[in-house]
Amino acid sequence: MNTLDETQWFTEVCEEGGSAISFRIHGRLHEEQTPYQRIEIYDTTDFGKLMVIDGFVMLTSRDNFLYHEMMSHPALFTHPDPKRVVIIGGGDCGTLREVLRHDGVQHVLQVEIDERVTRLAERYFPELCEANDDPRVEFLFGDGIRWMKEAAPGSVDLVIVDSTDPIGPAEGLFTEPFYRSCHRALGEHGLLVQQSESPLLHFDSIIQPMHAAMRAAGFGHTHTLPFPQPCYPSGWWSATLAGKQPVDRFREQDARQRNFDTRYYTEGVHRGALEPPAFFLR
Amino acid sequence: MNTLDETQWFTEVCEEGGSAISFRIHGRLHEEQTPYQRIEIYDTTDFGKLMVIDGFVMLTSRDNFLYHEMMSHPALFTHPDPKRVVIIGGGDCGTLREVLRHDGVQHVLQVEIDERVTRLAERYFPELCEANDDPRVEFLFGDGIRWMKEAAPGSVDLVIVDSTDPIGPAEGLFTEPFYRSCHRALGEHGLLVQQSESPLLHFDSIIQPMHAAMRAAGFGHTHTLPFPQPCYPSGWWSATLAGKQPVDRFREQDARQRNFDTRYYTEGVHRGALEPPAFFLR
Repeated sequence: MNTLDETQWFTEVCEEGGSAISFRIHGRLHEEQTPYQRIEIYDTTDFGKLMVIDGFVMLTSRDNFLYHEMMSHPALFTHPDPKRVVIIGGGDCGTLREVLRHDGVQHVLQVEIDERVTRLAERYFPELCEANDDPRVEFLFGDGIRWMKEAAPGSVDLVIVDSTDPIGPAEGLFTEPFYRSCHRALGEHGLLVQQSESPLLHFDSIIQPMHAAMRAAGFGHTHTLPFPQPCYPSGWWSATLAGKQPVDRFREQDARQRNFDTRYYTEGVHRGALEPPAFFLR
Repeated sequence: MNTLDETQWFTEVCEEGGSAISFRIHGRLHEEQTPYQRIEIYDTTDFGKLMVIDGFVMLTSRDNFLYHEMMSHPALFTHPDPKRVVIIGGGDCGTLREVLRHDGVQHVLQVEIDERVTRLAERYFPELCEANDDPRVEFLFGDGIRWMKEAAPGSVDLVIVDSTDPIGPAEGLFTEPFYRSCHRALGEHGLLVQQSESPLLHFDSIIQPMHAAMRAAGFGHTHTLPFPQPCYPSGWWSATLAGKQPVDRFREQDARQRNFDTRYYTEGVHRGALEPPAFFLR
């Protein structure tokens, strides 16, 4: 049994999971209360920088590649020709960087409610922001739910919901009305991908209701792709795809011949992530 | 920032990873020092029973299915006809239970150095021990390294090394001399599978040296299969297969038509686990 000294460790307790994850730290580099949430940045001993929002781990320098690659490449290689992408949330810009690796993408609008997340990412996670000057990017700091409600029908190819957990500012992003707005904004081959929490801890409470709400909103095809994410509760996370067309096949040859480096994603990893764990099938 | 009260939480610190995992507990049910190690059993609030050896989490009731299924079924469906299985370690009997689900298996010898692990599993994890009376099982409480050294050449189809980490009693199980003993004991289609720690934390320090040592010992084919394991450091773990024949293909149709239930493993999950993350390929 060890007691963790809070001057040397940052700990996130997952109340509903009865578990906690901690990172050893050199210290806290920054803290502020924005109009939306409390943001903290820590310097860890082994995971690089750590961003925390309202007490919840958002990302670390060391392992964010898993999340950001799985929030972007599977969806982009599933859509036949994604040109117009909207990211809701995504303030740390890691997902945005991955999206911009796809040459066919012509425009990415990122709608993040809290500009401070992006400003702090620029300072503490500059590697994630290295593509922010790409002329294809447009930043909008505002309400993603409202933006989606007002979007022109059929004007978007891919919506990526890269948000915090479904409590607090992000709650409305996990609801049927929001999915309905997305469905309307998306074109014929339109796709939505959303982070969908832990397959172990949240299958009944979040993943299954998310599928139900996406289907009720008009998406005929949904699929959850699990992936490892050490800094989140249980270390196992997921992205859920919703499409007007099937989402369990993808442009495998394009994925194999991609002209950019990845650290986790490959066409094989994509195929593997499409294979549901046995307990998903019950 | 939270400080975890040690009367309400069990915490394992992963020193080399700069991280820690904690489980909320009702209390400690048992503790003892055996001739080999210190064993503790905790009653957690959300993960069932928790077994800890020398301060390291061994298993919880809730998530052990991931580890035990991935330590057994991929190897058993890779060998063309596994009849004679030896488990080194495996004292909690969870892997043994999965092995016995395969009708073709005729004999399983489990060589666990510490009988107390098995006795405590019978008491606190009875569901994992439900097949212990199967007439195909033989228990030997003794030194697995010595047993393997003295095994008759070609007398075994599959060796499963289900051990603690490569420090303490299990250290010798991660060495070329041990792999050489296994190679000699195995038949023509013989296979070895071993838990090989975290893909994120131990790729350079354990996984790559393990491949090198297995190949130096004569195994022509090695492959690491990652899988989620929330109760271990980083929540991402792996099993490494070593074979005299290729280990990246398997009896997929038999896996699909298996006559037993699983909670994680499917033939698709197996295919997916064979797909290396991009950073494995560098």
